[in-house]
Amino acid sequence: MLVHELVHGGHRIRVARDDLYPLAGGGNKGRKLERIFAELPAECQAIITTGSTQSNHARVCALLAAQRGIEAHLVLHGPSRELAAPEGNLLVALLAGANVQVVAADRIATTIDGIHRALQERGVVVRVIPGGGHCLAGGLAYADAVDELTVLPDVIVLASGTGATQAGLLAGLDRRQAETRVIGVSVARRQREGRPRVLESYRELRGHLGLASPERQVEFDDRWRFGGYGDTRPELLDTIVGVARTTGLVLDPTYTGKAFFALLGMLRSGEIARQASVLFWHTGGLLNALASADLKEAMKRV
Amino acid sequence: MLVHELVHGGHRIRVARDDLYPLAGGGNKGRKLERIFAELPAECQAIITTGSTQSNHARVCALLAAQRGIEAHLVLHGPSRELAAPEGNLLVALLAGANVQVVAADRIATTIDGIHRALQERGVVVRVIPGGGHCLAGGLAYADAVDELTVLPDVIVLASGTGATQAGLLAGLDRRQAETRVIGVSVARRQREGRPRVLESYRELRGHLGLASPERQVEFDDRWRFGGYGDTRPELLDTIVGVARTTGLVLDPTYTGKAFFALLGMLRSGEIARQASVLFWHTGGLLNALASADLKEAMKRV
Repeated sequence: MLVHELVHGGHRIRVARDDLYPLAGGGNKGRKLERIFAELPAECQAIITTGSTQSNHARVCALLAAQRGIEAHLVLHGPSRELAAPEGNLLVALLAGANVQVVAADRIATTIDGIHRALQERGVVVRVIPGGGHCLAGGLAYADAVDELTVLPDVIVLASGTGATQAGLLAGLDRRQAETRVIGVSVARRQREGRPRVLESYRELRGHLGLASPERQVEFDDRWRFGGYGDTRPELLDTIVGVARTTGLVLDPTYTGKAFFALLGMLRSGEIARQASVLFWHTGGLLNALASADLKEAMKRV
Repeated sequence: MLVHELVHGGHRIRVARDDLYPLAGGGNKGRKLERIFAELPAECQAIITTGSTQSNHARVCALLAAQRGIEAHLVLHGPSRELAAPEGNLLVALLAGANVQVVAADRIATTIDGIHRALQERGVVVRVIPGGGHCLAGGLAYADAVDELTVLPDVIVLASGTGATQAGLLAGLDRRQAETRVIGVSVARRQREGRPRVLESYRELRGHLGLASPERQVEFDDRWRFGGYGDTRPELLDTIVGVARTTGLVLDPTYTGKAFFALLGMLRSGEIARQASVLFWHTGGLLNALASADLKEAMKRV
């Protein structure tokens, strides 16, 4: 695990660089999906998965499927016009030869079912990979990532979406009997919907790993959603631009920008003590940052 | 050095993954410029450099300057309309706060001089970094990269532009007393202009490293320029798309696509023997691939 230290706004912050995870475009989905693909049956010939049109998860699924020589079927939600002029993650997924359909969010499940049936009728061995890599194998990849840390911090802050990354870190820290606090900054869901999902993954991982230590509180903080998934605000975008200019660290508006904004807020307010050792877990997102029209606008403003 | 093996068109090829070099956007310029920046004087407050509007070198200069808290001035050549709707490398450079001017190729030198003078008049300590990181420190980074290889191949194939990467590999192989052949595939210059530049860097490196072994022949192959810097042809683009689809490896049309196309051609023709162990040195270019209008067009066609 590559860890860099930076100073921003007078705060010394260590950064776990999963944005540089060695797979084209980087990010935490590489770490999760290499584990998930390793557990696919040898006879698997196709995978189906889902995400947004700028999904990092979908891009990595497409790359790993190409690498393995199997079909990737991506059922994506978002602006269907993106298919006409693809950028970022969507462009890489298409380059890697993925079959892409863009549908309304409420048609994802039936579309996946339809592709699944059609492939099975052709005799193709197919597996459905959960959106975001939200499954046991994905979480285990992050429990193991904790073992790569040479120094355990007081606090880890990260962007939390489906929550498997956060749950994996929690389970991995339990296994190391670490006291480290983990703050998942919600990028989409409200606490009442999101927290139970993280908790469920966390419990599944603890059961799988046979952990007997007391279960810890899951912190899933929904104060920095900025409206919801993919939504932005000027102050969020300005922070992303400011951080890039002063540190060279590229954050994205959908995931890591919100988490870093939250971290700065908690450091300012004292919710995270000044003397605490802080690790920001950078989960990636370079390619969706580059495809963000909001961020491009903000760059003109600053 | 991360090395992956892939099979394409029946050929087993190992790939040195400098495209995944741990710096946002990856690529060989990260390896060179970290070395170059490390050798800047501590009091340096600004750097000036040059490249195309989709220069990987310029992007990395901008990121490392931001990381170090100094000014980056980029004098770029290419379509000035790119500034109005920046993509790929240019977008990252602007996000990192670089000062960018796009000028005609014949105005680069005078523009650099003008910025240099203006900064000095303000009392700013400034250094000019050669385009492409073409200097001793850049070459040394690649001589050292050779030491990271656990297995030495019979042949290394790589994209060769300014030639410091190729010269560095040659010097590093000399130092290891390796027989490995290095084929630099020109992405721009004809042999008569390009080869002397590689040779000059190679000799400078050999002198610096005090190498006494016989100087080897510099292979700078200009058969796969496809017209010149940034120029493409349908068969080049189709190969890039084909390689991505069958292996998940992302090549770009300006640099690595030409080198990989050349490698496949030499394997087919027997110029590189079938039984030779081949290492393709992937020098990066994800971000200029994503900004390539030609590649986007080709994806629609295949």
